[in-house]
Amino acid sequence: MARWDSLSDDETQLLETTFWTAGGSRHRMAGRLGFSKSKANALIAGLVDQGLLAETGAERSSGGRRAENLQLSADLGVLLGVDIGATSLDIAVLRPDLTVLAHHAEPVDVREGPGVVLAVVRKRMRELLAQSGFGARQVIGIGIGVPGPVNFDIGQLVNPPLMPAWDGFSIRDYLRDDYAAPVFVDNDVNLMALGELWRLKRSLANFLVIKIGTGIGCGIVCHGEVYRGATGSAGDVGHICVDQDGPLCHCGNVGCVEAMAAGPAITRMAIQAANDGQSATLAAQLRDDGGIDALAVGRASRAGDAAANAIVQRAGSLIGQMLASIVNFFNPSHIFIGGGITRIGPLFLAAVRQSVYHRSLALSTRQLEIQYTPLGERCGLIGAGVLAMHETLKVRGVAP
Amino acid sequence: MARWDSLSDDETQLLETTFWTAGGSRHRMAGRLGFSKSKANALIAGLVDQGLLAETGAERSSGGRRAENLQLSADLGVLLGVDIGATSLDIAVLRPDLTVLAHHAEPVDVREGPGVVLAVVRKRMRELLAQSGFGARQVIGIGIGVPGPVNFDIGQLVNPPLMPAWDGFSIRDYLRDDYAAPVFVDNDVNLMALGELWRLKRSLANFLVIKIGTGIGCGIVCHGEVYRGATGSAGDVGHICVDQDGPLCHCGNVGCVEAMAAGPAITRMAIQAANDGQSATLAAQLRDDGGIDALAVGRASRAGDAAANAIVQRAGSLIGQMLASIVNFFNPSHIFIGGGITRIGPLFLAAVRQSVYHRSLALSTRQLEIQYTPLGERCGLIGAGVLAMHETLKVRGVAP
Repeated sequence: MARWDSLSDDETQLLETTFWTAGGSRHRMAGRLGFSKSKANALIAGLVDQGLLAETGAERSSGGRRAENLQLSADLGVLLGVDIGATSLDIAVLRPDLTVLAHHAEPVDVREGPGVVLAVVRKRMRELLAQSGFGARQVIGIGIGVPGPVNFDIGQLVNPPLMPAWDGFSIRDYLRDDYAAPVFVDNDVNLMALGELWRLKRSLANFLVIKIGTGIGCGIVCHGEVYRGATGSAGDVGHICVDQDGPLCHCGNVGCVEAMAAGPAITRMAIQAANDGQSATLAAQLRDDGGIDALAVGRASRAGDAAANAIVQRAGSLIGQMLASIVNFFNPSHIFIGGGITRIGPLFLAAVRQSVYHRSLALSTRQLEIQYTPLGERCGLIGAGVLAMHETLKVRGVAP
Repeated sequence: MARWDSLSDDETQLLETTFWTAGGSRHRMAGRLGFSKSKANALIAGLVDQGLLAETGAERSSGGRRAENLQLSADLGVLLGVDIGATSLDIAVLRPDLTVLAHHAEPVDVREGPGVVLAVVRKRMRELLAQSGFGARQVIGIGIGVPGPVNFDIGQLVNPPLMPAWDGFSIRDYLRDDYAAPVFVDNDVNLMALGELWRLKRSLANFLVIKIGTGIGCGIVCHGEVYRGATGSAGDVGHICVDQDGPLCHCGNVGCVEAMAAGPAITRMAIQAANDGQSATLAAQLRDDGGIDALAVGRASRAGDAAANAIVQRAGSLIGQMLASIVNFFNPSHIFIGGGITRIGPLFLAAVRQSVYHRSLALSTRQLEIQYTPLGERCGLIGAGVLAMHETLKVRGVAP
């Protein structure tokens, strides 16, 4: 394993830039960092010697000279990425360049508390490491996403509404016996934003990632960095009011978009439609499966069921109404929508778009793009890897 | 006049830091910039020699040694700051440390177009400069705030709803014949945010400034910098919907907070109350003056008029409802409210606070402070000075 206990500022910067712009050439790297060609060459040679950087996929440029592509060396070790959702768990072992070496997904219920859920996480981590031929000592950084507000500095959840048993629990301390590597914890939607920021090689400076599943949350990228707010709760958009006469939400207010348009609300509307005789398809689904999730509503909608269409349309429209306020305020260039809702199909996205473009000011939407997260279901997991590598570089880059 | 055509990066940084943290000592300055004491001393000596920096208010520290306070030298020249509101104009000549040397305010109507308004601006600039003993050649930077969306890079208004005649007009070109100094144009609320950021010596990283007058706008400070959005329209919160069944707004949508709670809406509610016989005070005001502005409603409210109180309460509550959405999304540490509305009195602020604390999540409001802008009515003008000095330093700091 390569050693990197005392990197200079310039070396750290070079590793950081390599991580964020993977596959870049020496030449472009020097330009980006404002280093002279000779300085960049000397730094790169040193880092390659130390086993921190690798040159791969050497391509013959038009002039016949080799234009080596740089990336973080696999000799550095591996990362562990964990994406804990309200009802799902995703874990992966990743290379420093975020290639996934091993991956495992299973359902969990975060309400069972940190003891139960983290015991599963710990076990799967060991299995996945063994499976990919690594041990705990080769792990250089661990990134974990959780579905609640996080105090990022201490890595603890703060008053998480969906998972009260986790309040103040230290995931970091829990894993300390198993791994010497640093552990970083962040809100799941912030990780999705980090994931997309990495995919984009930081080419967009101001965009949003909305996760819609059991709840609704928003990751914010501002001035090219993930923005967490004054007390770490930025992006808590699920409780924005979209109807002053709407139903009561578990937060105590009425008409919150989460209570009216997230997964459970879609299920509720579908059961109502089934019971009211508005849809034979939904009624059959309810009878056969004993329940109707958003996925089933999406299937019925794509098959042309009018009631299912109306439900998808209504949910998308309410979410678009909430987003319209945010677009007027924040003027993002892109909104990426992720989470379980994306499986519902294209009609939902169309309804969101229509509602946003209708309600926001023309100037804010002139160049606005709204689409599903390009990283798809892997968005949070890749984000966990980005968190692990990015923050580990920051920690390691400090000379002792 | 001092010369500063080719400053080094370090020198520019030192001048910038001096500007933002006026009155700091050499010692603290070196610490802030990460310079060694000897490097800072050499740079400062050089800049003092060139007439760019001045040491003032030398204080005897407890140990008996002098701790000189640094500020930008008055020898640099002067700044022109202009704050154009929908119905008002404020102009000042300022020293590089933002001491106001001469100030003039008068009513204008921006709807009369750039030709009429800028002719007044040009005339007042000359008069104020003469009054403070300076000429056009001593002006080093000009900052101008306008009540509409601005493309900051080219300094032009883009589709301004309140002032359509200004669309695409170049204020910069208009003033080019009079001044060699660079001209910077920004939205008026962004300037208020810049003003408060400077007053705070950048000690807060994430806060909002809301201006409520004829319209409603918001200046955003994020990661310690003014945030303008992907296409420059960030903070356009006046058209956030607070009532799906609300009145039609000039933007084409219904229930916009601006149409329901800004100055004209307050006037409309007051005239209605006067005509409906709900308030003898407001009826008398309408009879005597032929109109009722927000100021008069505030006076009636402070005198205990129940109908005026209800109007102030309703406007504050609607604005608080809009802010609650933004607080959930952005999680700012402070919201500063400015503009004409502040003259209405403390009941308005109380209504805003109550509404925000009621509707936002506890985690977002735990440390949130909502108050009137500490810089008061000078907020925009000081902001224009900050824009002029800050951007001029950026432009000048580049070696030719």
